[in-house]
Amino acid sequence: MTSILAIVGKSNSGKTTLIERLIPVLKDRGLRVATIKHNRHGFDIDHKGKDSWRHRKAGSAATVVASPQMVALVEDTERDYDIKELVDRYIHNADIVLVEGFKDNPFPKIEVSLTASRHELICTKEDGLLAIASDRKYNRGVPCFDINDIEGLADFIEQRFFSS
Amino acid sequence: MTSILAIVGKSNSGKTTLIERLIPVLKDRGLRVATIKHNRHGFDIDHKGKDSWRHRKAGSAATVVASPQMVALVEDTERDYDIKELVDRYIHNADIVLVEGFKDNPFPKIEVSLTASRHELICTKEDGLLAIASDRKYNRGVPCFDINDIEGLADFIEQRFFSS
Repeated sequence: MTSILAIVGKSNSGKTTLIERLIPVLKDRGLRVATIKHNRHGFDIDHKGKDSWRHRKAGSAATVVASPQMVALVEDTERDYDIKELVDRYIHNADIVLVEGFKDNPFPKIEVSLTASRHELICTKEDGLLAIASDRKYNRGVPCFDINDIEGLADFIEQRFFSS
Repeated sequence: MTSILAIVGKSNSGKTTLIERLIPVLKDRGLRVATIKHNRHGFDIDHKGKDSWRHRKAGSAATVVASPQMVALVEDTERDYDIKELVDRYIHNADIVLVEGFKDNPFPKIEVSLTASRHELICTKEDGLLAIASDRKYNRGVPCFDINDIEGLADFIEQRFFSS
């Protein structure tokens, strides 16, 4: 069973940085962590001139590059998959998937908010908000962690998703 | 049912170029073409600083980037998968998969050989050799196509794999 946790927040609120800091801490606790990033404007991956890049440019519907330690797949999709579909299709073996960039998703959420970005929170408990990570204190009926308290957040995630 | 065709030949024999030229021609014939490239020394994909790159660098076991048109997955693997495993795991929807870089695979093969690279052929009919693509003529009991006869090769592939 793969747990799914969305890291939400306005643009440039520090979502990727939080994910980047959470991954090694969760990993140290023995969890296999995967991530899914949604980018509605498309994205660019791979390096110009590489064989895989050349295959894709020539029109391959899907290109896999495989090595003994790592595999990469780039493929066309006929539509924008939702989180559940992406996990079912692409995540083969993870304890938890941290997702970023999906609007209005039904999964539990941690919202990142920094004073510098001067935005209001975008989620409430009703949206599945589990906790807030910020450099200020919020009283929204969910735990509010200091943005640098990565261990505290990891404890919370571990307890919320993996305590039996 | 996904057909698998290996494009083989010595290093720098022009395998990627042939694949690159075959893809659009096969695609024009209504085939959905995927590719798999094996690189035993590992590979490097994605751009430094991108969110997906940051997730991987932080230690994610698998990272997906999704957009409405395209999905990319980069993941750790516990071992070197063979072609069949890679197709089963990663190729969701293709009529034919052109594979490159796998030693001693059991699939039908087209060998690329150019005079300039001055190598002997590496495959025989017994290895599954279906045809040769070269700038010289070989008599090895299989059709030998001019390296620039992409339409001829596509006809051959279509007839071999898709004629009922």
